Amino acid sequence: MLPFKSLISSKQLTAESIGEIFEITDYMQDVVETKGRIDTLSDKVVALLFFEPSSRTMLSFQTAAQRLKAGPIFAQNASSTSFEKGESIEDMIKVVAGYSDIIVMRHAQPGSAQIAADASNVPFINAGDGGNEHPTQAIIDVYTIHRNKGRLDNLHVVFGYDSLQSRSIHSLTRLLAQYPGNKFTFIGPEALFPNQAMLDELTTLGAECDVQDCAAVTKDVDIIYLNRLQEERFPDLQLFEQNRKKYRLTRADVEGSDALILDPLPRIDEIAVEVDALPNAVYFKQTSYGVPVRMALLASLLGRA
Amino acid sequence: MLPFKSLISSKQLTAESIGEIFEITDYMQDVVETKGRIDTLSDKVVALLFFEPSSRTMLSFQTAAQRLKAGPIFAQNASSTSFEKGESIEDMIKVVAGYSDIIVMRHAQPGSAQIAADASNVPFINAGDGGNEHPTQAIIDVYTIHRNKGRLDNLHVVFGYDSLQSRSIHSLTRLLAQYPGNKFTFIGPEALFPNQAMLDELTTLGAECDVQDCAAVTKDVDIIYLNRLQEERFPDLQLFEQNRKKYRLTRADVEGSDALILDPLPRIDEIAVEVDALPNAVYFKQTSYGVPVRMALLASLLGRA
Amino acid sequence: MLPFKSLISSKQLTAESIGEIFEITDYMQDVVETKGRIDTLSDKVVALLFFEPSSRTMLSFQTAAQRLKAGPIFAQNASSTSFEKGESIEDMIKVVAGYSDIIVMRHAQPGSAQIAADASNVPFINAGDGGNEHPTQAIIDVYTIHRNKGRLDNLHVVFGYDSLQSRSIHSLTRLLAQYPGNKFTFIGPEALFPNQAMLDELTTLGAECDVQDCAAVTKDVDIIYLNRLQEERFPDLQLFEQNRKKYRLTRADVEGSDALILDPLPRIDEIAVEVDALPNAVYFKQTSYGVPVRMALLASLLGRA
Repeated sequence: MLPFKSLISSKQLTAESIGEIFEITDYMQDVVETKGRIDTLSDKVVALLFFEPSSRTMLSFQTAAQRLKAGPIFAQNASSTSFEKGESIEDMIKVVAGYSDIIVMRHAQPGSAQIAADASNVPFINAGDGGNEHPTQAIIDVYTIHRNKGRLDNLHVVFGYDSLQSRSIHSLTRLLAQYPGNKFTFIGPEALFPNQAMLDELTTLGAECDVQDCAAVTKDVDIIYLNRLQEERFPDLQLFEQNRKKYRLTRADVEGSDALILDPLPRIDEIAVEVDALPNAVYFKQTSYGVPVRMALLASLLGRA
Repeated sequence: MLPFKSLISSKQLTAESIGEIFEITDYMQDVVETKGRIDTLSDKVVALLFFEPSSRTMLSFQTAAQRLKAGPIFAQNASSTSFEKGESIEDMIKVVAGYSDIIVMRHAQPGSAQIAADASNVPFINAGDGGNEHPTQAIIDVYTIHRNKGRLDNLHVVFGYDSLQSRSIHSLTRLLAQYPGNKFTFIGPEALFPNQAMLDELTTLGAECDVQDCAAVTKDVDIIYLNRLQEERFPDLQLFEQNRKKYRLTRADVEGSDALILDPLPRIDEIAVEVDALPNAVYFKQTSYGVPVRMALLASLLGRA
Repeated sequence: MLPFKSLISSKQLTAESIGEIFEITDYMQDVVETKGRIDTLSDKVVALLFFEPSSRTMLSFQTAAQRLKAGPIFAQNASSTSFEKGESIEDMIKVVAGYSDIIVMRHAQPGSAQIAADASNVPFINAGDGGNEHPTQAIIDVYTIHRNKGRLDNLHVVFGYDSLQSRSIHSLTRLLAQYPGNKFTFIGPEALFPNQAMLDELTTLGAECDVQDCAAVTKDVDIIYLNRLQEERFPDLQLFEQNRKKYRLTRADVEGSDALILDPLPRIDEIAVEVDALPNAVYFKQTSYGVPVRMALLASLLGRA
């Protein structure tokens, strides 16, 4: 039993609840690989409200609902619904809670998830509220490490190439910092290093942190977690083009290393395609864990796991 | 057994067929509250064609299909389908009738529902054809009154604040006027009073009608049915802003009254949020009845209820 | 067992595999007419990726998935997903293959289907890749002839009115040319006759071909396969208007003939509505076969038929 009715922020996730989610996720992954689908939620309706463009999150929540035999209902894009007529988020959520047994929402407005969860009398899952939180992605990331590395402590993790504004890196570092003995090296252009407040927070939580302006990583780390550079973070296109060529993991960089390589995707240039064939390049596995993780959350919040 | 194959207009609804729909809706509401989903339509495919933005109607039809375990198929927005290439509504419907067992359609063009129903060899439900008809909303409204007030006759109903062009108010008043002893008071800005033709029609059907330019309603009425003011109905923004502040139901207006408060939603300013906590504020209940009502219609038109 | 894992092009379809697909399609058509839905794929998830507008193809694939009780997951329009952020088709497909058991994709880019099928480790069906291929439509067309005419050989088929750039006509003629004794007459404006390369290919495959600039067809043919003229193929609107009036099948043209009349739809002006009532006007039947054909393909490629 998770100690919350709704999942809004990765800050709700203690080591204990993460352990519980992992156990259910392992079971769900087994379902995916063997039976394909189970009847766990065949009496439930799951509302999937995606008011912002999404692909991986939307498709894997749909898949999770289908593999649990729940009945999904969708609203995709505020512009194809009438939810933009000036109705409040609270009213909209009260309406949807009157139809469904659990609500999953992605919304552009930071903080909208908390507002929605407070208004809802059914469980609620935040599937991303603007630049604020995306807790199910954070769970997928730690689950990938747990399942493929066997532990969440005493890890040396390299994060790049944009740690400044990455919702994924913020959540993952905060979660990992709960476990003893973890060390984080942030790489990438200096302008995209984490800010001091974030470094202080992680250090206070117990993690050892350092930053390095480089693309290459030493091979004797445990985890390499990369995301793409984004044009809008650079003053001009030329600088962006220089950086996207420089900050790029090649096969030579990691050949022979047993470091797990993760990426929240989409991948643009940050990892050369030639890396995909390495057994430790687990980013496509990582995205596939979105299904059992979200199955675990749906089932658990509905009291069925 | 309903005496029609397709539901196009609230004018098809006699007191007898409304009674029949209520009986099935009560059963479906019980399903919603207990079993969650039933196998009634597990061998059927329900086509949901929403060529105009919709949220409540679209989501509650999806929910109704899912709770009956039918297989829904969707087309949302003509622009993401190829139905806008110049194909006639008749052809489009013949195509969809070749795939599905029943068709639900929302379309911007008034009269499109009749054209579609005539072209279809499977049952058809109008989910709104422009400003013309939205019969399932009308059923939800009378069902809300029936379920929470216990009767549809001898009611004093206040309608506001825009009775002139409201599809919902037109349909609901016409349905209620079939029952004896009903009295309607239309309130709001004079420019948005019902037109004389409508008042004449209702009077002929047997209802007593009067109009009042005021926001406040006396507490000793049975039903208060409000909708939002819309900017495009006012000559300028300033006048709109004045009116939206004036025509607004507050808690003081209805505290202590046992009048049911309904609203087809979305709610903008017409009802203060502080009213929501009152036991007679049933507008969120009202929207939730969209599910059992639409379950009843789908099942009934497919001969399963 | 079909001799391919993924269906990308009508060029993969031999007489033998077509025969096998017909057998399964007959069975699925029987399911549609009797049980409505079956459990064949109740443990599977079907990804439906429609990155280009589509109506018939999208709705009939949805229906096929629902009638086999598979769990469909959708992405409709690249613009409402984040797949347009610069991610490659290969990466996108690897992500979706991590969620689903089979992928159906429509994409604007010719050749995208082959790229996707190569990247996918689950079966893949091309639902149209730009102007290139649309193999499931080709199967529907030959199935319509087979089911209503009883044979695919020794047929005189008239094709019109735009054979030049029609994906449907290209695929269908190529498939039919595999069978002995077939003769194709292409009618329509001379500018829209098939090009010499196509005529040569069909002749080499064994079909007899001729072209005629006329709208009327003699009644003693076996099949009339028409599609609409499109404005963008004409130098000016006036010429287009003249042609759309001229190239048009009327009831008088085919009254008394036992020629089957097919049209891939949407129908604009190429067939007068008065023709619809003739027993040989099978174009709405033809579109409805999209469901059993696509059921057969989904089931077969998943090893369930």
